[in-house]
Amino acid sequence: MNITANNPLLKSWVSIPENSDFPIQNLPFGIFSTHSENNKRVGVAIGNKVIDIYQLASFGYLNDLEFTASDFEQDFLNPMMLKGKVATRNLRNRISELFEISNTELQNNNEHIQQILFDQNECTMHLPVKIGDYTDFYSSEQHAFNVGCMFRDPDNALLPNWKHIPVGYHGRASSIVASGTPFRRPKGQQKPNAEEPPVFGPCKLLDFELEMAFITFEGKELGEQISTKEADDYIFGMCLFNDWSARDLQKWEYVPLGPFLAKNFVSHISPWIVTLDALEPFRTNGPVQDPKVFPYLEYEGDKHIDIKLEVSIQPENSKETVVTKSNYKHMYWNMNQQLAHHSINGCNIKCGDTMASGTISGPEEGSFGSMLEISWAGSKSVAMADGSERKFIQDNDTVIMRGFAEKDGIRVGFGEVNAKVLPAN
Amino acid sequence: MNITANNPLLKSWVSIPENSDFPIQNLPFGIFSTHSENNKRVGVAIGNKVIDIYQLASFGYLNDLEFTASDFEQDFLNPMMLKGKVATRNLRNRISELFEISNTELQNNNEHIQQILFDQNECTMHLPVKIGDYTDFYSSEQHAFNVGCMFRDPDNALLPNWKHIPVGYHGRASSIVASGTPFRRPKGQQKPNAEEPPVFGPCKLLDFELEMAFITFEGKELGEQISTKEADDYIFGMCLFNDWSARDLQKWEYVPLGPFLAKNFVSHISPWIVTLDALEPFRTNGPVQDPKVFPYLEYEGDKHIDIKLEVSIQPENSKETVVTKSNYKHMYWNMNQQLAHHSINGCNIKCGDTMASGTISGPEEGSFGSMLEISWAGSKSVAMADGSERKFIQDNDTVIMRGFAEKDGIRVGFGEVNAKVLPAN
Repeated sequence: MNITANNPLLKSWVSIPENSDFPIQNLPFGIFSTHSENNKRVGVAIGNKVIDIYQLASFGYLNDLEFTASDFEQDFLNPMMLKGKVATRNLRNRISELFEISNTELQNNNEHIQQILFDQNECTMHLPVKIGDYTDFYSSEQHAFNVGCMFRDPDNALLPNWKHIPVGYHGRASSIVASGTPFRRPKGQQKPNAEEPPVFGPCKLLDFELEMAFITFEGKELGEQISTKEADDYIFGMCLFNDWSARDLQKWEYVPLGPFLAKNFVSHISPWIVTLDALEPFRTNGPVQDPKVFPYLEYEGDKHIDIKLEVSIQPENSKETVVTKSNYKHMYWNMNQQLAHHSINGCNIKCGDTMASGTISGPEEGSFGSMLEISWAGSKSVAMADGSERKFIQDNDTVIMRGFAEKDGIRVGFGEVNAKVLPAN
Repeated sequence: MNITANNPLLKSWVSIPENSDFPIQNLPFGIFSTHSENNKRVGVAIGNKVIDIYQLASFGYLNDLEFTASDFEQDFLNPMMLKGKVATRNLRNRISELFEISNTELQNNNEHIQQILFDQNECTMHLPVKIGDYTDFYSSEQHAFNVGCMFRDPDNALLPNWKHIPVGYHGRASSIVASGTPFRRPKGQQKPNAEEPPVFGPCKLLDFELEMAFITFEGKELGEQISTKEADDYIFGMCLFNDWSARDLQKWEYVPLGPFLAKNFVSHISPWIVTLDALEPFRTNGPVQDPKVFPYLEYEGDKHIDIKLEVSIQPENSKETVVTKSNYKHMYWNMNQQLAHHSINGCNIKCGDTMASGTISGPEEGSFGSMLEISWAGSKSVAMADGSERKFIQDNDTVIMRGFAEKDGIRVGFGEVNAKVLPAN
């Protein structure tokens, strides 16, 4: 592969603020509209700007690639992604070339720049992908262990299948929405007291789950498998994912077929899809897997990624407080294993499928990925900057997740995913 | 509502064979192509014929309705369904009027008939609906009881939540395919012996699940609820659904987040969507629900439907053997309750969502809806017409499900859903 856009020596003629998530080495893809023109288009973030890829193509700057301008005037990234890994890699490389400081093709054309570069604060970001199927894994050992300790038995916290199978389940695609979309606290059945009948009302134990998700290219036909070796070719990129969870609904409903209403009321994803290519420099090794996994789950090379993550809670009209700092490298199962497992039975993967990691909890307190773990099932509180306390998420709280990879002075980030909880209706 | 097409006195100028599933009182919708013209179009079944609704519209026979011809030259029914309940009801009523024996508008135009009516055996039927999200419920009490007896404790076979919640979970939409699509036996992890490590290989306990599914119109926005009273307005129609299940994969993987690879390798649906309107004459009452359900699950009127169901196994080059006869009326939770439950937390329902019933088992032996139950976890065999025996489904077997409602001499049927199992690859 030839990922010229990853060169750490590259600088752009677009100014990049210090600590920006979007240097020229990132170039993540999203769907945007501007306040003056509300047609949706493919955009790429650079510094505080959005590059209008539709206009870039319309002006002929992308002529030697496998795309037409109409691929970029779309409600979702899917038509672009349908062209596959090599085509989108070449596209990112070409955008890098155009915005590199020594390249004058666009740099010297002020008229074009006016129509191609927008301030991010002039833009509205939309859900980037038309999601076909959504799968949620459960691949952080510390998270599975914590939950097992709280709800089952600390001496047997991990279930017997957990180290053999990248456990996953299907979730709801229709209720995955763009960052910033407020939502109502869900209502549902709960059984707070084991000796009494269930009750109905607004969820009392609303929680976030700090996750990352990967978005797939079109996969193989039904009945075929994707190996761990092939998996990278089927992954377009990654984003932050907040898998909102109603713990009291979940506890009552989830036996024997898994979470349903406890999860499907809403999930939020960050607007920029950072390509897997852009994340290659941040690969790291994963844990030694013991017991040994089945051959279809074996993999070669470093397939984990070092991505620093944090979550803040912002009460209404108040400052935010960071409540956890974790890292995507803490996964037991990596994406290649997840995708190989998902397709080992012949399940077909489609362009735009979204596969979330499961809650990403680090090995110690302070790095847990949900309030369930941070408050240890509500047994302790977290102090907010405004003096209030939290065990779970309250009405009018905004939860914000951020993440970035950093190495050798290059920071490739995801921006943020945020959402405000409105009272139940 | 004014469902003139349901009049039991109507007769068609198209001849209807005895015991046809498709009298003029049915008029189910599907997507077809012909052997000579492979563009996909909306079709309606009548007797042994398919009515080309695109041609019908093109010739002007549907002019006073809310559709244009292009709504019917489509890969899926979704664009038609997006027009909603009243529009599709009026469409079915108009088709009924045109094909009623005293109506000569089309009957006397042989040139048009040649281009509008096709023999079903000249047509290929396709997946009728672009499925957004797929949900599987678990709403037959006898099935839940049987499974509970086999896997848990006969004295506490139903879990505590089962009579409070129409238990459901999300499934995989991408692998739901048209009737007749062969598929490979899935591979995966199994743990046949509790004392030994898991093994990997082709599923040894492949099973069908006899289910029906309903297909939705576009629902409400995220955060809104659909009541049991409103539910009928959001249901387009129903079909047969084979929820193939790999029992050995399922047993090892499903704790704690539910079935995943045990189900998502394939599911099959029947090609014709019978409208909920056409099923109205076959409504029947449901069981008394004790304990009393929460108000959001209460409903008025008869919301169950009397639909006779059966499943056959056909070994290769052999005759089929009926292995079970059940009925959709055996559901504990009806569709209105399922949809109200699904949206009580604000989950948004979209046009083309598919919601399956869960295995439909009747109250006695001979009416169970899966081989797991029929063979009572493999403890007894079923004799086939060719002298062989089955506990589960073998390679090269074809499983066929059929269903119809019948009352006062009118039979409204679903045709069949069938699929052949190929050996694992």
